[in-house]
Amino acid sequence: MLYIPFDDLVRTLEAALEKAGVDASRAARLSDVFARNSLEGVYSHGVNRFPRFLFCIREGIVRLDTTPERVASLGGMEVWDGRFGPGPLIAEDAMARAVELSRTHGIACVSVRNSSHWMRAGRYGRQAAQAGMAAILFTNTTANMPAWGAEDPRLGNNPIVLAVPRSKGPVVVDTAMSQFAYGKLEVAVQNGQMLPFDGGYDEEGRLTRDPKAILKTRRILPAGYWKGSAMSLALDLLAGALSMGRTVCAVTRAPEDEAGLSQVFIAINFRGLLPAEQVDRLLDEAVEFLLSSKPVPGGAPIRYPGQDVERTAARNLERGVPVAEETWEKIQAHMQRP
Amino acid sequence: MLYIPFDDLVRTLEAALEKAGVDASRAARLSDVFARNSLEGVYSHGVNRFPRFLFCIREGIVRLDTTPERVASLGGMEVWDGRFGPGPLIAEDAMARAVELSRTHGIACVSVRNSSHWMRAGRYGRQAAQAGMAAILFTNTTANMPAWGAEDPRLGNNPIVLAVPRSKGPVVVDTAMSQFAYGKLEVAVQNGQMLPFDGGYDEEGRLTRDPKAILKTRRILPAGYWKGSAMSLALDLLAGALSMGRTVCAVTRAPEDEAGLSQVFIAINFRGLLPAEQVDRLLDEAVEFLLSSKPVPGGAPIRYPGQDVERTAARNLERGVPVAEETWEKIQAHMQRP
Repeated sequence: MLYIPFDDLVRTLEAALEKAGVDASRAARLSDVFARNSLEGVYSHGVNRFPRFLFCIREGIVRLDTTPERVASLGGMEVWDGRFGPGPLIAEDAMARAVELSRTHGIACVSVRNSSHWMRAGRYGRQAAQAGMAAILFTNTTANMPAWGAEDPRLGNNPIVLAVPRSKGPVVVDTAMSQFAYGKLEVAVQNGQMLPFDGGYDEEGRLTRDPKAILKTRRILPAGYWKGSAMSLALDLLAGALSMGRTVCAVTRAPEDEAGLSQVFIAINFRGLLPAEQVDRLLDEAVEFLLSSKPVPGGAPIRYPGQDVERTAARNLERGVPVAEETWEKIQAHMQRP
Repeated sequence: MLYIPFDDLVRTLEAALEKAGVDASRAARLSDVFARNSLEGVYSHGVNRFPRFLFCIREGIVRLDTTPERVASLGGMEVWDGRFGPGPLIAEDAMARAVELSRTHGIACVSVRNSSHWMRAGRYGRQAAQAGMAAILFTNTTANMPAWGAEDPRLGNNPIVLAVPRSKGPVVVDTAMSQFAYGKLEVAVQNGQMLPFDGGYDEEGRLTRDPKAILKTRRILPAGYWKGSAMSLALDLLAGALSMGRTVCAVTRAPEDEAGLSQVFIAINFRGLLPAEQVDRLLDEAVEFLLSSKPVPGGAPIRYPGQDVERTAARNLERGVPVAEETWEKIQAHMQRP
């Protein structure tokens, strides 16, 4: 593992993006997305995804020659067409627009069709929370998870984010509808570990904790069995219907690899309505109630979601951001392309 | 098990409510709620909850001498105080108000504080879908589930509903954040069955499928382990903050038993924005894609959430609505109270 100073990392990614044909302003924003996702500890959706992002640009899966376009609006609701541009920028702009609309409309919804992978979902929840808004956002994906009772993958793992702003640090849930992400399975295989709980099916159709067996069948388990399966379908239908875009079905059938995703960004301006100190007191009391639970001896640490982000970022700022050597070499190789 | 004709059931519940002091108009609405929840197959939140509802009225936990009051509004967002009235009516009115607001605002949010138990969450999702709107709604509860890593219950199982209207029948997910509801555990004990998957902890702190052991410890398992735990917290914070009402912490600390709940109703008028036939085609294609999955031999039937509601209702309309004898006797005993 390499530990790259954050500023060096940002500059390196920026140069790589410009070499790939991204203009300076978008390169600056995108390099921050990838570098900061790793800085804040979400390595599975940070710099390690960067070589694949460059590949998507080269292959035209992510397009640089388009800009998003608003196609419909009604009150606090807008529908945009992302026109297959860079997902992280489309998502950031959509979330910012929802935040803006919520200032006057109280609650606002921006849905986007024809987007591309937004990398780390939680980023846009934190963005809304920093602007003082609660947020609910979700995306669909290509089919990568069988429905409950099914063998073949016809659902996405469709992550959802719930974000609540708080003076003492936002509470941000960022969770996929599968029990484990494919990235987690790969890491477990690399480390020679079994999963702590069943994560999918082996070739005999039995539930298993063996990540290698699950990667072979590609049959990951919905979180909460039938519950994650049902939620995944509903999120997909909402994303498709609200944006008049592709559902998981259409994404999977399209010739490109996971392109034209549908995404929904809801911002809620409850602080514009209610006394700030009272809201903070209420939220702090609830979080303290949780954190003062009696811990299970030897159990998982009791945390609120998003609690460790600041600390992880501070540590990675100090010691450098962890980047796998293989990933770093790919970025260097890209820089040496003719 | 008794099988009571639906109309008889409605009339019986209506008479019982009027005897408990509920005025005719609210008695008519409430009897429909309880009877229809059972008619549509959600027995855990139908007539079997009715004796407890009568008890709550007698004890003043559910108050009849108040009406809900709007306390704040901004654009498509309103905050109401339920003033401890009957939860199912507060919920129905709040959902109807959100639907109404979404006609002009596109997306609307009505949050309610000081409500009481709304019984079956999915009812209000179906209500929105029947009016042509998508809906996201959730409630908090009293603390009944330990956080991930904790021993003592400091989270609610806080159900969420996602509803998508569709010409061929709405897709409605209605799911609590625990893997199994307490009602399900009780039914399993009655039937002498084990749970199909781990549902909580035994006295030695081990995960178990034994419903009796879990009812003893009251340590139910969050759906998806840390995932349900995180979602539950976020839904509670949103419900409390958006309504400036009680969080699970405050509900649990209050002297009354599960009173003064906070609830959120979001309606989305995507059909007001987008071509209806196209939306229907897109939704139908996605649902068909799911339903034509390859089934696991001997596995669970592949269904979309809400698919069986109409069929169950038709069957119960035909043969009578199943009501436990014990429940029926309690209602008769209530009618004979002086």
